[in-house]
Amino acid sequence: MKLATVRVNGEARAARITDDAAILLDAADVGELLTDENWAQRAAADGESISLDGLDYLPVIPRPDKIVCLGLNYATHIAETGRETPEFPTLFGKYSGALTGAYADITKPHQSETLDWECELALVIGKGGRDIRAEDALDHIAGYTVSNDVTVREWQRRTRQYLAGKTWEALTPLGPWLVTSDELPPGASGLKIETIVDGEVMQSSNTSDLLFDVPAIVAYTSEVISLKPGDVILTGTPGGVGNARDPKIFLKPGQLLETVIEKVGHQKNRIV
Amino acid sequence: MKLATVRVNGEARAARITDDAAILLDAADVGELLTDENWAQRAAADGESISLDGLDYLPVIPRPDKIVCLGLNYATHIAETGRETPEFPTLFGKYSGALTGAYADITKPHQSETLDWECELALVIGKGGRDIRAEDALDHIAGYTVSNDVTVREWQRRTRQYLAGKTWEALTPLGPWLVTSDELPPGASGLKIETIVDGEVMQSSNTSDLLFDVPAIVAYTSEVISLKPGDVILTGTPGGVGNARDPKIFLKPGQLLETVIEKVGHQKNRIV
Repeated sequence: MKLATVRVNGEARAARITDDAAILLDAADVGELLTDENWAQRAAADGESISLDGLDYLPVIPRPDKIVCLGLNYATHIAETGRETPEFPTLFGKYSGALTGAYADITKPHQSETLDWECELALVIGKGGRDIRAEDALDHIAGYTVSNDVTVREWQRRTRQYLAGKTWEALTPLGPWLVTSDELPPGASGLKIETIVDGEVMQSSNTSDLLFDVPAIVAYTSEVISLKPGDVILTGTPGGVGNARDPKIFLKPGQLLETVIEKVGHQKNRIV
Repeated sequence: MKLATVRVNGEARAARITDDAAILLDAADVGELLTDENWAQRAAADGESISLDGLDYLPVIPRPDKIVCLGLNYATHIAETGRETPEFPTLFGKYSGALTGAYADITKPHQSETLDWECELALVIGKGGRDIRAEDALDHIAGYTVSNDVTVREWQRRTRQYLAGKTWEALTPLGPWLVTSDELPPGASGLKIETIVDGEVMQSSNTSDLLFDVPAIVAYTSEVISLKPGDVILTGTPGGVGNARDPKIFLKPGQLLETVIEKVGHQKNRIV
């Protein structure tokens, strides 16, 4: 199934996306839906059908309890940043206000000339837990979605902590939908992942190249803190970011940023 | 006024704390109360009065939209970490699951022998906003409370990002109450702040020694992302952390951790 949070008559609503319609579900958003342990049953229910034309997609999970992000999780990106292969996952956070829709305009901050892309596979927790073992981790995942950890590089680099450059308001598209785990390979491995800017492929990799794979990430994070339904984990970005290019390239108003993960989704965000 | 979130008959409830009783308010917790722009009026209302004896204090704001933390914000702490005086505030995050009550037991993670203290003044946003000017910042603050950014040093140092060592489950006491801004000096400046372990003063400083003061912190953070009512900002810790001592000292089960800010509050957490 594909599950989305859409805006209908000005209000958020969970919906199941089919080939020809959106079926409205009995939940304000996908995050709320996932708090019900019978979410899969509720997500499959009948409901009012609305047209996909011009459907307004909000972030799949508009207000996760946590957004956990991984740095340095593809060998190609580690190499371009000049770092050594890390022994442990690099975790940092974002707040929910950083999220935006998969087709929303992204406003370049006037404070920045170094807005950069980072395509990422995002996983969404279905069943919470603490100290989840890697071999059980996939049972805790509701599904996967697309994200782009759009980054304000100057602000990321102002101090040693990334947060200020990573949680800028409404820069991180999440969606358009969550694809439930049963429709994807285990751990969403083996999927092509790309960033395309104005038609030019800037990042192209495969989710099988993750240094810490999806089960390892869930296990490690849940050792620190309990995961809850609707929590979102961004699994890191491959090589090809604008900041590591020679010459460096950054996003400019007017450009179209596309983020694509095979079988998961295709975002199109206009920089304004 | 002093406002707390307490547990009554197994449920969270906002309360006004007076010299001799807790007056229950019409809100599930202080965070919910602050979403009402007339929160101060509601907080002053009459209500059922219960005894202060054995009152069970939860984190003042149990589920803030954001917990923003500052690193390197007292000259004495910057010096002991060997860093240079930073040009910009160092921001990092915590998730709400990291919070615990002002008198709750703190469980030393079995993964750590380097559990460390960091007393901090915490501010709580009353009126949200973006791009708040420093000169307007104090109008956006509902009040102040006490926190201790108890840290798992090994995990903080495993990578360059602090999050894993800073957001460990239920290690960060927040409370016991919020003291409204009108009862404190502007920006909660000029208040003695201390960490005491088993009766020994380990950190002792004054909130007037903040490198980036409260208005500057609110202005900087709100440039990145909109602040919302109930958001919590931990303003950094002074020198005297266990990790910077020679020899290093860390928290052990059985010890009593006290965190005290003059006119704001006094936490007592037993390490178990």
